[in-house]
Amino acid sequence: MKKNICVIVASRANYGRVKHLMMAINDHPDLNLILILGASTLLERFGKAVDVIKSDGFKPDQSIFYVVEGETLSTQAKSTGLGIIELASAFENLNPDLVITVADRYETMATAIAASYMNIPLAHLQGGEVSGNIDDRVRHAITQLADYHFVCSEKSKNKVISMGIDEGKVFNYGCPAMDILKQEKLNITNELMRKYEGVGHVMDWEKPYILVLQHPVTTSYGKGYEQISETLYAIKAIKNIQKVVMWPNIDAGSDDISKGIRVFREMNNNENIYYQKNFSPEDYARVLNNASCCVGNSSSFIREGSFLGVPCVLIGDRQEGREHGPNIIFSDYKKESIKQKIEYQISIKKYKPNFLFGKGNAGKLIAEKISNLKLK
Amino acid sequence: MKKNICVIVASRANYGRVKHLMMAINDHPDLNLILILGASTLLERFGKAVDVIKSDGFKPDQSIFYVVEGETLSTQAKSTGLGIIELASAFENLNPDLVITVADRYETMATAIAASYMNIPLAHLQGGEVSGNIDDRVRHAITQLADYHFVCSEKSKNKVISMGIDEGKVFNYGCPAMDILKQEKLNITNELMRKYEGVGHVMDWEKPYILVLQHPVTTSYGKGYEQISETLYAIKAIKNIQKVVMWPNIDAGSDDISKGIRVFREMNNNENIYYQKNFSPEDYARVLNNASCCVGNSSSFIREGSFLGVPCVLIGDRQEGREHGPNIIFSDYKKESIKQKIEYQISIKKYKPNFLFGKGNAGKLIAEKISNLKLK
Amino acid sequence: MKKNICVIVASRANYGRVKHLMMAINDHPDLNLILILGASTLLERFGKAVDVIKSDGFKPDQSIFYVVEGETLSTQAKSTGLGIIELASAFENLNPDLVITVADRYETMATAIAASYMNIPLAHLQGGEVSGNIDDRVRHAITQLADYHFVCSEKSKNKVISMGIDEGKVFNYGCPAMDILKQEKLNITNELMRKYEGVGHVMDWEKPYILVLQHPVTTSYGKGYEQISETLYAIKAIKNIQKVVMWPNIDAGSDDISKGIRVFREMNNNENIYYQKNFSPEDYARVLNNASCCVGNSSSFIREGSFLGVPCVLIGDRQEGREHGPNIIFSDYKKESIKQKIEYQISIKKYKPNFLFGKGNAGKLIAEKISNLKLK
Amino acid sequence: MKKNICVIVASRANYGRVKHLMMAINDHPDLNLILILGASTLLERFGKAVDVIKSDGFKPDQSIFYVVEGETLSTQAKSTGLGIIELASAFENLNPDLVITVADRYETMATAIAASYMNIPLAHLQGGEVSGNIDDRVRHAITQLADYHFVCSEKSKNKVISMGIDEGKVFNYGCPAMDILKQEKLNITNELMRKYEGVGHVMDWEKPYILVLQHPVTTSYGKGYEQISETLYAIKAIKNIQKVVMWPNIDAGSDDISKGIRVFREMNNNENIYYQKNFSPEDYARVLNNASCCVGNSSSFIREGSFLGVPCVLIGDRQEGREHGPNIIFSDYKKESIKQKIEYQISIKKYKPNFLFGKGNAGKLIAEKISNLKLK
Repeated sequence: MKKNICVIVASRANYGRVKHLMMAINDHPDLNLILILGASTLLERFGKAVDVIKSDGFKPDQSIFYVVEGETLSTQAKSTGLGIIELASAFENLNPDLVITVADRYETMATAIAASYMNIPLAHLQGGEVSGNIDDRVRHAITQLADYHFVCSEKSKNKVISMGIDEGKVFNYGCPAMDILKQEKLNITNELMRKYEGVGHVMDWEKPYILVLQHPVTTSYGKGYEQISETLYAIKAIKNIQKVVMWPNIDAGSDDISKGIRVFREMNNNENIYYQKNFSPEDYARVLNNASCCVGNSSSFIREGSFLGVPCVLIGDRQEGREHGPNIIFSDYKKESIKQKIEYQISIKKYKPNFLFGKGNAGKLIAEKISNLKLK
Repeated sequence: MKKNICVIVASRANYGRVKHLMMAINDHPDLNLILILGASTLLERFGKAVDVIKSDGFKPDQSIFYVVEGETLSTQAKSTGLGIIELASAFENLNPDLVITVADRYETMATAIAASYMNIPLAHLQGGEVSGNIDDRVRHAITQLADYHFVCSEKSKNKVISMGIDEGKVFNYGCPAMDILKQEKLNITNELMRKYEGVGHVMDWEKPYILVLQHPVTTSYGKGYEQISETLYAIKAIKNIQKVVMWPNIDAGSDDISKGIRVFREMNNNENIYYQKNFSPEDYARVLNNASCCVGNSSSFIREGSFLGVPCVLIGDRQEGREHGPNIIFSDYKKESIKQKIEYQISIKKYKPNFLFGKGNAGKLIAEKISNLKLK
Repeated sequence: MKKNICVIVASRANYGRVKHLMMAINDHPDLNLILILGASTLLERFGKAVDVIKSDGFKPDQSIFYVVEGETLSTQAKSTGLGIIELASAFENLNPDLVITVADRYETMATAIAASYMNIPLAHLQGGEVSGNIDDRVRHAITQLADYHFVCSEKSKNKVISMGIDEGKVFNYGCPAMDILKQEKLNITNELMRKYEGVGHVMDWEKPYILVLQHPVTTSYGKGYEQISETLYAIKAIKNIQKVVMWPNIDAGSDDISKGIRVFREMNNNENIYYQKNFSPEDYARVLNNASCCVGNSSSFIREGSFLGVPCVLIGDRQEGREHGPNIIFSDYKKESIKQKIEYQISIKKYKPNFLFGKGNAGKLIAEKISNLKLK
Repeated sequence: MKKNICVIVASRANYGRVKHLMMAINDHPDLNLILILGASTLLERFGKAVDVIKSDGFKPDQSIFYVVEGETLSTQAKSTGLGIIELASAFENLNPDLVITVADRYETMATAIAASYMNIPLAHLQGGEVSGNIDDRVRHAITQLADYHFVCSEKSKNKVISMGIDEGKVFNYGCPAMDILKQEKLNITNELMRKYEGVGHVMDWEKPYILVLQHPVTTSYGKGYEQISETLYAIKAIKNIQKVVMWPNIDAGSDDISKGIRVFREMNNNENIYYQKNFSPEDYARVLNNASCCVGNSSSFIREGSFLGVPCVLIGDRQEGREHGPNIIFSDYKKESIKQKIEYQISIKKYKPNFLFGKGNAGKLIAEKISNLKLK
């Protein structure tokens, strides 16, 4: 009998991380994919990743709304609580043999708690990473709850083991997000990108551009408005190049960031800036690969960015302690230093690829390992 | 200005653990106690610890019902979710400077998640302990979420540090549950115990008795009925001694244990067995101290039991890997072996006191340390 | 294509009301039964009606725990809230063409709100009844939310229409609870009843007995303990007859009633009283039919009782304003007057059958009507 | 001792309705205002009415997030459920003598259920109105749950009584929303309106404009995008006049309406249209009073519009059956007919004031009546 493997995709970023694993599970003769979509994947404001996921051919077994609106610290906690309640009911109905949860956000925590309290074996992707801020706590707490650990680097593997986890349950096959980079052609054309609407400047994707993606930082909750404003005025000051600004994910404080972007846009509507909520994982990889420089604090800059060698200015401390390739330069939140560092990075053009987070075959390896696990 | 220190008491067992810390916070000139009662402390079926807490002079700032009834694995998860939602609202209203959470059960997890997602500094009591079963996961996950760690033994301190926690945030002052043992006279009299109603045999507390307290074991969910039945028939087989049987706590599976006790009671109502739901922490300490032998899997047998030197037969694997004194003998779930081991332990009478979990002054030391912490 | 008709059974009493409708839906060529079990049907403490339902051959499509434990007024509200959340997710998955909700309790309200806010056509059973207390509000509120109204008497039909409901949507086929009375042989034997365990006196079902079933009354929340005690001491004072005492349902205040029963039982354990949580609907009908007198405030005494002509002493104001047959005598909560009225009723033996609530063919008529409704 | 009167403000529209009642409660010597803010009043996307409320001098006793994001039919139900849970806890803490709930939306239902299940006397504003669509059900259901009914017109009073409500509990003092219209000067100037940011066209408030406010219609869920588009292209076709477009409230389907507005705005960014989320109640009254014509389906067009005599084109069936003044002309959703009717209404300029919904002194009369109610 096939094993039922339940993947919960709860954000745009999640999907990019697990897509190739989902494909590998679907393709595996001994595995059956159960797909639950939840949280911001379903929300208009966050680009409705559900549409991309469906158009990729996946059929969700259940779609669950459990985001308590507000993006404050307390609604983040409440969303976790509601997620646990809803996922407990879903797991009771769907009865999976293994649940897979990804990374370190509150949706991930909700999945981890629901599964582990229900005695359902839990596999965690991206454990053991260290970013130096509050996300580490959630990530490490999930590591403690999980049964199996599919880490993305040797350093992460060592970290997970050092926390007292049985070495035999920790597997480093790299990050499935790399699989997209390896298996797709990542050149960009206007034709390919025509399907995206977005707002503002009409992009010529075949010409140079800067990519901005900056999320709120939980530990400096309340400062997001200023932080993003500094970044936006920094890129405004760099002339003669297009800019792509993406909206933040749904963490506490994303309202502040979004407001900063909206206010900036109203007051600067003739700048050559294009605003977008969501790309498919492949197209996001294209946008990243072809950027002259990426700016902000997305973990994709570190992970996919290092694989692709894209120059990056990493702002603030959200990724401070994280393992990274040479493509990363850190900056504080000051407009002037951001601007200078972007200009330097643009001058570099491209770094050498770095395979810190895997070689692009993680999905298949993980699926195969899962098929061999002796689940209770 | 005084620091507002929020203690959440969410079960009968919690209260015994933190009572002396709550007293020490109340007595401290720089600290103000905020008390939240939740979960099974409020429930008739679990002995309404709230009545004892109030009669001890504590005034709860908020009482919150968040147990989803059913005692299945999924309701345990749902109770955690509902607890997070409710506690997030409570914290928003009460605005504490520090939240204190105790031990390793789902209510503890709810507190830990609500506080840490709301950026409220979190102190955890009893981290770093190892019992060898699923509770370890929750306990270690909470360790990863907490800011400050008040552990109960040197071994636990080393364990917490080994998990990557900053040594400067880990403090071993022993367990405040020991304070009760040190600071109270623990002789038992019929007069003292007259206030308890209970069911069944009318106890002569001044004569010998066996104490039984056996909780469900999450990892063997569904087997509780048989497990408790073996224990009860084992004690039935030991004649000429009274027995005190306490009802289990609210974990998944407690319905099974309770049913086992009820069915046994119906079919064996002439045995000299007394049934009770709840004692005050001091009276529980008396009952434990004067037992000829305690039987089951309560962690109090290990913790308080070792301090008091009470002979104990510890059944099953719920406490398997836990640090313990010489007063503990382990047994499997078989009636015959339980009976033999009880008889052996009764013959010992009393072990030497063992101060593995502290010397009985933890409450004051923890309160003093908290008053000196530089909370954000 | 068959219409998917979703019945939510959320309490022991619910099941007796809709069982024959569920059978009729199952038997109908154009209808498909979707069965959701929720709330106290799943709980050990309330007799786990789920076991009876399954042994009757029904297969629940989903079982949902949504009772917040505590039986206070606030947990009753919270259970309603949690029920709405859970049922909304369930309806989204199961996608019914019509939802059926029964009577007037909080679980019924949860069903009504979830369905009506989701634009799913809603049929309500037992609308338009008037009991003269707070249940009326909930019942009438549900009437306002529902699309179709299957009432149980002409008086109820007129009441529903008088509230502004379109006459064409109100149907009086009687109450499906009567179907059990019509279609089953209701003689009782010890052999038939051997399967029930229960506690206390060993019944000789073939000899006379009094039946007690008394629920908490929301508007006199906090007085349940005294109220049931008066009743129990009244039946104790009637010698030479067996008594069957059933535990109350899960309303706010049922803890008080249960405690009253438990305390009475402890102090009076040699009386010839048998305690039971739950019977199958047929066996409950037998127990009722053969009682010398029924005592308490269950609506079944009015409804089934009038059909069967069972003498009844109805205590307090829970059913005060309700339409009823001649078998009912009302009493206040005083022990002495309860006792006298029971003795009078026992002397009557049996009243003539009264078909106020239907003739025993409601299930089929309702199913047929549903099959002809033009649902959107 | 003062009576504690708890008002729950759960949307922008709520606040306009009860502001003058809140003021009258604050001013009354025997009443004490407890203010809870919930749901969309707290949300950036819906204009954060909380900021206006605070700047008016009110101090919320509690602010509760309970909107489950998604604006689908199921999230509307879930938000109701979560609201009940949160409000039950809030009521338990705040212990009000009376709870006031306004109108007919899901937040109102959450308040009504939490209060009535907790035996707290409940007063309902705006009962008995008939709009001919699904809102009627919720409104009438709340009427059945409420203890006191402060209706806004004689017709509504009669409707409430006809539903079986005791005449002595139904009071018609008019709608407190009219108080604002009576007690404020409603001329508009650019200076007064300078404080509002908004997006798009820079308004000259002293010159003519059309006001658009169109909410989603639950019963035609999924069609909002087309519906608003027709309206927007209709106003686009009317040249030489400014337009003010307000964003919809948070009902199921508001995402569709918002998307329609955003897409229109992107494609038509040179039209003289100003986009705004929220005005203070007084400023909204000004904007309404000075509009050449108002277009959409807001109930304020009927209520405040009739008092002020503002010409209105009312689109669709959301207010179809509602009592209204002569200022209303109904239209279907077709661009062409909307355009023609707007042009006709503009030519009228102003209708005579109509006092169908009160004379502007409701707040004080209601507060006085409340002070005289004999609450338990």
